Amino acid sequence: MHAYRSHTCAQLNKDHVGQNVRLSGWVHRVRDHGGVLFIDLRDHYGITQVLADSDSPAFAEIEKVRAEWVISIDGLVKARDASLVNPKLPTGEIEVYIKGMRVLGEAAELPMPVFGEVDYPEETRLTYRFLDLRREKLHNNMMLRSNVVRHLRNAMWDQGFNEFQTPIITASSPEGARDFLVPSRLHPGKFYALPQAPQQFKQLIMVAGFDRYFQIAPCFRDEDPRADRSPTDFYQLDVEMSFVEQEDIFAAVQPVIQGLFEKFRPDCKTATDWPRIAYRDSLLWYGSDKPDLRNPIKMQVVSEHFRDSGFAVFAKLLEQEGTQIRAIPAPKGGSRKFCDRMNAFAQQQGLPGMGYIFWREAEDGDDRKAEMKASIEAFQADLIRKLDGKVENNLLKMVAAYGRTRPGKEIIARSVGVERAKAKDFSYTENGYLTDLGRELASEFFNDAGFLVYKDTLIAESVLEAAGPLAKNIGPERTEAIRQQLGLGLGDAAFFLGGKPEQFEAIAGRARNEIGRELGLIEENSFRFAWIVDFPMYEKTDDGKIDFSHNPFSMPQGGMEALQGDPLSVYAYQYDLACNGYELISGGIRNHKPEIMYKAFELAGYPNSEVDKRFGGMVKAFKYGAPPHGGCAMGIDRAVMLLADEMNIREVIMFPMNQRAEDLLMNAPSEPTNEQLRELRLRVVPKDA
Amino acid sequence: MHAYRSHTCAQLNKDHVGQNVRLSGWVHRVRDHGGVLFIDLRDHYGITQVLADSDSPAFAEIEKVRAEWVISIDGLVKARDASLVNPKLPTGEIEVYIKGMRVLGEAAELPMPVFGEVDYPEETRLTYRFLDLRREKLHNNMMLRSNVVRHLRNAMWDQGFNEFQTPIITASSPEGARDFLVPSRLHPGKFYALPQAPQQFKQLIMVAGFDRYFQIAPCFRDEDPRADRSPTDFYQLDVEMSFVEQEDIFAAVQPVIQGLFEKFRPDCKTATDWPRIAYRDSLLWYGSDKPDLRNPIKMQVVSEHFRDSGFAVFAKLLEQEGTQIRAIPAPKGGSRKFCDRMNAFAQQQGLPGMGYIFWREAEDGDDRKAEMKASIEAFQADLIRKLDGKVENNLLKMVAAYGRTRPGKEIIARSVGVERAKAKDFSYTENGYLTDLGRELASEFFNDAGFLVYKDTLIAESVLEAAGPLAKNIGPERTEAIRQQLGLGLGDAAFFLGGKPEQFEAIAGRARNEIGRELGLIEENSFRFAWIVDFPMYEKTDDGKIDFSHNPFSMPQGGMEALQGDPLSVYAYQYDLACNGYELISGGIRNHKPEIMYKAFELAGYPNSEVDKRFGGMVKAFKYGAPPHGGCAMGIDRAVMLLADEMNIREVIMFPMNQRAEDLLMNAPSEPTNEQLRELRLRVVPKDA
Repeated sequence: MHAYRSHTCAQLNKDHVGQNVRLSGWVHRVRDHGGVLFIDLRDHYGITQVLADSDSPAFAEIEKVRAEWVISIDGLVKARDASLVNPKLPTGEIEVYIKGMRVLGEAAELPMPVFGEVDYPEETRLTYRFLDLRREKLHNNMMLRSNVVRHLRNAMWDQGFNEFQTPIITASSPEGARDFLVPSRLHPGKFYALPQAPQQFKQLIMVAGFDRYFQIAPCFRDEDPRADRSPTDFYQLDVEMSFVEQEDIFAAVQPVIQGLFEKFRPDCKTATDWPRIAYRDSLLWYGSDKPDLRNPIKMQVVSEHFRDSGFAVFAKLLEQEGTQIRAIPAPKGGSRKFCDRMNAFAQQQGLPGMGYIFWREAEDGDDRKAEMKASIEAFQADLIRKLDGKVENNLLKMVAAYGRTRPGKEIIARSVGVERAKAKDFSYTENGYLTDLGRELASEFFNDAGFLVYKDTLIAESVLEAAGPLAKNIGPERTEAIRQQLGLGLGDAAFFLGGKPEQFEAIAGRARNEIGRELGLIEENSFRFAWIVDFPMYEKTDDGKIDFSHNPFSMPQGGMEALQGDPLSVYAYQYDLACNGYELISGGIRNHKPEIMYKAFELAGYPNSEVDKRFGGMVKAFKYGAPPHGGCAMGIDRAVMLLADEMNIREVIMFPMNQRAEDLLMNAPSEPTNEQLRELRLRVVPKDA
Repeated sequence: MHAYRSHTCAQLNKDHVGQNVRLSGWVHRVRDHGGVLFIDLRDHYGITQVLADSDSPAFAEIEKVRAEWVISIDGLVKARDASLVNPKLPTGEIEVYIKGMRVLGEAAELPMPVFGEVDYPEETRLTYRFLDLRREKLHNNMMLRSNVVRHLRNAMWDQGFNEFQTPIITASSPEGARDFLVPSRLHPGKFYALPQAPQQFKQLIMVAGFDRYFQIAPCFRDEDPRADRSPTDFYQLDVEMSFVEQEDIFAAVQPVIQGLFEKFRPDCKTATDWPRIAYRDSLLWYGSDKPDLRNPIKMQVVSEHFRDSGFAVFAKLLEQEGTQIRAIPAPKGGSRKFCDRMNAFAQQQGLPGMGYIFWREAEDGDDRKAEMKASIEAFQADLIRKLDGKVENNLLKMVAAYGRTRPGKEIIARSVGVERAKAKDFSYTENGYLTDLGRELASEFFNDAGFLVYKDTLIAESVLEAAGPLAKNIGPERTEAIRQQLGLGLGDAAFFLGGKPEQFEAIAGRARNEIGRELGLIEENSFRFAWIVDFPMYEKTDDGKIDFSHNPFSMPQGGMEALQGDPLSVYAYQYDLACNGYELISGGIRNHKPEIMYKAFELAGYPNSEVDKRFGGMVKAFKYGAPPHGGCAMGIDRAVMLLADEMNIREVIMFPMNQRAEDLLMNAPSEPTNEQLRELRLRVVPKDA
């Protein structure tokens, strides 16, 4: 028999009853049931219940055993009584009667328990990470991460990508964050840097003639810590392809990511439709370039309804250049209490407040309802009578004709979800004949269920009354126009923010999140993705200069020609993949032409000499035959967090730093020896020097 | 059609004739055949011949194209004339007639060509690595490496191992080599270190309850450069398992490595028998703990033959304690010229020289031969006559009886390859009956072919004469005893080294390699493996102290008890895998018991406090329930070098440092900015300070 085990702690079932087995593992829990000791023995694979009574030759030894000791037992597999079978445990049908035991590793008094997963302060958890990792949740997270990495590698290989390792001890490559430096002993006074990403290397791999690269690559950034970011390093699925356009990258990546989410979260719906959303639209609609599309709220520009209106704050604001009023529709948010709460939220976020309108039932609602109901019923009865036995063509004509009546128009309009006022435009031609669209509408119209829905909605809307101070200021007509634009109804609300979009967009986005969450609008158990595209190449900095707004290595859309005009109107071939409010992937089609690269940097204020100095290796390479290429990178930690439903990155990393970038288990960073400093020819400057 | 290509440069064949296609790639070579331009267009996948004549609308453009430009062409696939088909090229049946062309990336005058793979100085190759990598050999090496890594990951996963990432920015962990340090900005004056190996982390992963870990892990050592070693970092297949003994590790690893070599070198023989060789035996037999078993030479101790002999140098040497004389047999090395060359080799290696004996034909050889031949023939005839018609039992008795005659004894002895003197011991019992072994011998003996081989050998040996100064000094009897011990014959030689083994073992090993190479004894196209086991735990340092001889984390064989006796007689559960003269894998069963670890370190002169300080995290973990565990690590770069038949590690790394640990392409290391130094609170000490 093997020295330590004949089976793992997850293997035994009733087929093994009567066998002598050997198991090894950790003592998960000991229970003393009056002279019978039950131990849950745990290993990587599972738990098996083992037991001894005073007849067991090992009983005296077993009595000494404590939680988290590592033991090896020899014993006999016995069936449990039917009443004691534990269906939740794969080994729940059996238990093992201990005949002999060896202690493989004792455990001192535990600073934190493993069994029970009681919450403990993070410092303790990190100091005793090896205990924390024994807990089921963290163990599962680590296995998930391991399986995610395996899945990703296989998916990339299956698509013809090759995995290459790029240097870790390399040159400083200014990409926005701080480098970690590594002093050179052989060249004292000089430093290597750890790569912030393998960006330049993967581009060089393309220039070197390899076609499809990937790597699960460690990236190093000396950053000030945040909960969802490691203060020192993180891993990314790094991808690059040659001879491709943007859509080729999307086509390569989507099946990989979709497969990943489908495989590891079969309990969730993984969206298969990944819309492309322009960066500017994403900011407008969602107040973020990483929108959470599980939230159905889509913001709209409503400036026109406030221009020269009675709401002086907005009316005046709109007189300034570059200002807008935007609305956040809040379906089912139509109560003063909720609106006030959201207003308070906006104030917490640093705004003076958020104007709002909500729609409630008018006081004479019952009368209005009765009137509308009668009108619709008359329309319906008339229609049905006239249609009786008619051929299709006439029928359609009649629908068109009835489209001119108010309820008919309403119903037709609603069946494609546009405002009532435009119903005429699409339901029939100037000669009174149906357009193709009208034809479709008509057939939908005669679907009874649909008709009834519209009917009920119309009746409900007939009692609508807009409330809130803002509604009073701008009057019923503008209020109704807003309601129609936003497609809202009874019980709904809308919030309004005004100013220069870049100044309130982020807050609008947070308000959208908050509203969606509060109203329970967020689609549960689902992953929704969107490619955010058409990022602007440049932005104006606070001091009025032009600088790159994102990645300087991306190809400007339109190439050299585009760089001759207004830099602020240039879009880059750059894209992000947003998932549930996170940026999961970022990438771009690269600028592989030295002359366009020099020009792009020149516009941002960098002379050629500076480009050569900073990115010399890559620019040099581009001068010797560079293929068009592009790629992207996905944060592994981020993906695992999403899959594991964790909010803290430290829950998905085996040995994380704490928030102060310290490794409490291994004691890093620590003071170097004088000998080490001498070899590196370095001196630490005293704090007050 | 896709913007850049409808096919790769390896896809087109005669099935595509008549199709309009688009290809992109590098201009590998341009040939002008009198108004017809032929271009070998190259991409990652292969080469396609494209051409244009003056009728082509693109001709004028194509005339401008130079080597390594990146172009995209539209053209028509045409079949080549039968006489022009290139069977070496997958696309050799066709060529593409260019209708249109776009230049995707121009190339400046090349500092080194890609086509033709002309040898260039390494500095040029590294400075223009992106060009060097386009060459077929290096491209293939990188693809081999990528495929090796893929194979290894799959093989490990298939065996139930999980891949986990361990920290790269971590604590200094003194394991023998120098650490690379990383100054901390958040904690000025303190430093992180890059891991020399994930040793402690992988052990912590076991203590944390995971069962089978692997990682293709980057390791960082600030080492003085060597051709077969990167001066900064390397990758290893890092493996650890819980609840295992040494043989479990071997059983897990062998199929992975064997499969690797079989898959990627189907042209070679990958040995399936992996002997276990004790460290001491390996040094004795092969002069190395990483023996090349393709070389059949096995050294032996021959001290007894020199003790009190006429060769004063050795005889005197043997009077000192701890000295030995060892012989390197050199089959077919029996010429004075060869022996003198090897002697010179030893002198180059710093020895006064190597004594030798070689065996040539004696002057009265013809007489001796005739005599021996007659004797054997008489024996044979007598045997055949007496055996005629006898039953088996008697037959065997007779063989045994004839075993007493000189030729009979010789033949029997040789059939198991031991010295003649011991033939009696195994061929029959004291009562004259055959032992089991004798029985086997007898059946072999009557195999005609075997008999003839022995017969010829005996006849050849009958003319033997030992030559060389050493033979004269010690006389014929001792010389013959040596010859018999070493199993040598006519035309063979033996070399002799004496002294304290540790002082000449390494040179003996090199001499063995040299002799094997010079004599063409090395088995070609094969990979031979051996597990080197039973490493001594401790060694005596030059100043007479006891220190760890290898890995301090290995479990001493015999555990705590073994540490009570003489430390120098303690073996560790530690092992290497040698392959063709390289150390491919190193590993051990770990010391997981704190008390044994403290004791082991105490013997090497480290108090408990020092252990806690240096390896605090791991020792702490062992106190809270550690499983028995062990593992190993294989150098990826080394494995790829072996598979690619490369002698320089830089041929198997995508972006290697040069020998001075500089990255000539990216310009690393380089001087930091003052701002960076200020943030880290560091100052560089001037050279003469």
